[in-house]
Amino acid sequence: MSVKIRDLAKQLNLSVATISKALTDSHEISPETKQRVFELAKKLNYTPNPYASSLRKRSSKTIAVVLPEVADSFFSLAINGIESVAREKGYHVLIYLTHESFEREKAILNEFKSGRVDGILISVSEETTSSDHIKEVSSSAVPVVFFDRVCEDVKTAKVITDDFESGYKATQHLAEQGCKKIIYLSVSADLSINKYRMEGYRKALKDYGIKEADTVYCGNNLDENYHTIKEVLKKKKRPDGIVASVEKLITPIYIACKELKLIIPGDIKLISFTNLQTALILDPPLSTITQPAFEMGKTAATILFKGIEKENFDLSKERIVIPSELAVRSSTRN
Amino acid sequence: MSVKIRDLAKQLNLSVATISKALTDSHEISPETKQRVFELAKKLNYTPNPYASSLRKRSSKTIAVVLPEVADSFFSLAINGIESVAREKGYHVLIYLTHESFEREKAILNEFKSGRVDGILISVSEETTSSDHIKEVSSSAVPVVFFDRVCEDVKTAKVITDDFESGYKATQHLAEQGCKKIIYLSVSADLSINKYRMEGYRKALKDYGIKEADTVYCGNNLDENYHTIKEVLKKKKRPDGIVASVEKLITPIYIACKELKLIIPGDIKLISFTNLQTALILDPPLSTITQPAFEMGKTAATILFKGIEKENFDLSKERIVIPSELAVRSSTRN
Repeated sequence: MSVKIRDLAKQLNLSVATISKALTDSHEISPETKQRVFELAKKLNYTPNPYASSLRKRSSKTIAVVLPEVADSFFSLAINGIESVAREKGYHVLIYLTHESFEREKAILNEFKSGRVDGILISVSEETTSSDHIKEVSSSAVPVVFFDRVCEDVKTAKVITDDFESGYKATQHLAEQGCKKIIYLSVSADLSINKYRMEGYRKALKDYGIKEADTVYCGNNLDENYHTIKEVLKKKKRPDGIVASVEKLITPIYIACKELKLIIPGDIKLISFTNLQTALILDPPLSTITQPAFEMGKTAATILFKGIEKENFDLSKERIVIPSELAVRSSTRN
Repeated sequence: MSVKIRDLAKQLNLSVATISKALTDSHEISPETKQRVFELAKKLNYTPNPYASSLRKRSSKTIAVVLPEVADSFFSLAINGIESVAREKGYHVLIYLTHESFEREKAILNEFKSGRVDGILISVSEETTSSDHIKEVSSSAVPVVFFDRVCEDVKTAKVITDDFESGYKATQHLAEQGCKKIIYLSVSADLSINKYRMEGYRKALKDYGIKEADTVYCGNNLDENYHTIKEVLKKKKRPDGIVASVEKLITPIYIACKELKLIIPGDIKLISFTNLQTALILDPPLSTITQPAFEMGKTAATILFKGIEKENFDLSKERIVIPSELAVRSSTRN
């Protein structure tokens, strides 16, 4: 049984109200009484009820991280960056997964309107096409900071990477390695990051005089993605270069190439957005656009705490861009 | 601004107490009044304060998942299994990361004593050497279910895989492929899963008449692990077979072998515990012990909800073992 305020009151022969005031360091209670209460509370290992305490202080000492999944190396690293800041501040980090569902994202955000958490870090789902659910929370007292996947029309802080430049760099690299037909593999037309990456891809194609190929959209099912990719690679006029916009496409691409006896990089060159450690030891090692995942998480959390702690801090003025890096490996060798 | 009870009270010209009672469907309030309150609440999109509501109902409709990290494929898949059950039950899943720290694990568990969540799923940290912090929570009203990494001395439900058999199978496979000096690479001597895997490794060595090599312990730092592994592989009497007990050792092993010009599987054969998708496309493809991660998460959550929903359900009688699978690929080819 956990120790309750009334247990403390009984043992000290004081009222519950007095104990409660002493525990919240009220000026109405004498230092001597506070001392007695604190000592007994410590001795009995008393833990305050978090809900009661939250009602009083309007602070849950908790921030929420809303993101699509944790199986992606970007998000698992970003979480570590977020936690490194939250730990210093003495805050809990609660992770909510949308599994790329707009409906789940709306349901999660709806819970936050009533003050369950003190602040929210969000990277939106692939399906998210409107931002009313985020605006509603953001316009209440709960600060919201976007990281990576943002809704441009919500007036609050955003921590992103240079997706346009990255899309450009990846495509430019393939063009300079001699690719003539470069396709862009994507999972969602609606995501902010994807729009910018594709614009960068298109600009590079234009600059290098390469005709744009149809974008190929994949989903969240490994098998289906494998079949979609295989169909593309089977075509007579198959691509000789691929920009993969998300890491879950890497394994199906490698497997499809092996099945079709297409050599990477001889027949087809591949570059992907990813933070996977194993990129180094794939067959062949994979050229990547590596995002500053840990830094982005850390920066987003730092800004969020400014929003939580400083009453007049204007989150809408914060837009931080941290550049990604191109790492050239054998999968794009000429 | 979010709508509060007092806003409803003002508009309907009723007391705050009446609104509150109407919203909780109290028999003291007439059906007509309830109807008026519900209609306005709906119209104004009123959301009850979760803390106030939790105080009343003693139910947060939330379960906690306490685990070491999300960068490991086992845990990210287990989370998906847990969420698949929680979603059906209409529960929130909050993920707490210990980052393999015993101190953080204790601090997190301490928070739960006061009823912040309705149930807890836990996989303990590498550093966890005692279980008092879990026993304290488990003996309060909060049901606890272990998955994968358990504390045997806590009398509650446990969902595990066959670690002894898996350690045996991995080692047996290397022995049958001709390995004469097989080492076991580990990260913690204290973890339950590791103890059983090592026992299986030792039993297989004995059965195949192979002398036991010193166990090599790695940590959580990629660079340090790389150096530790390289030292082992540089020795004159280097191993010809490795059982890697955790997936974060895979990349440093492959890189160290490449640096030292050791061919996998010609000079050294490797098998690892992992659920990594990219195991299939590594150079060479990696033989693995694949744990039933999604199933384990799903089963653990299913048992936890029995503990939450049925008052007399005896969690301590539940011990479920779901077998892992050996997948043979080129990294152990003879």
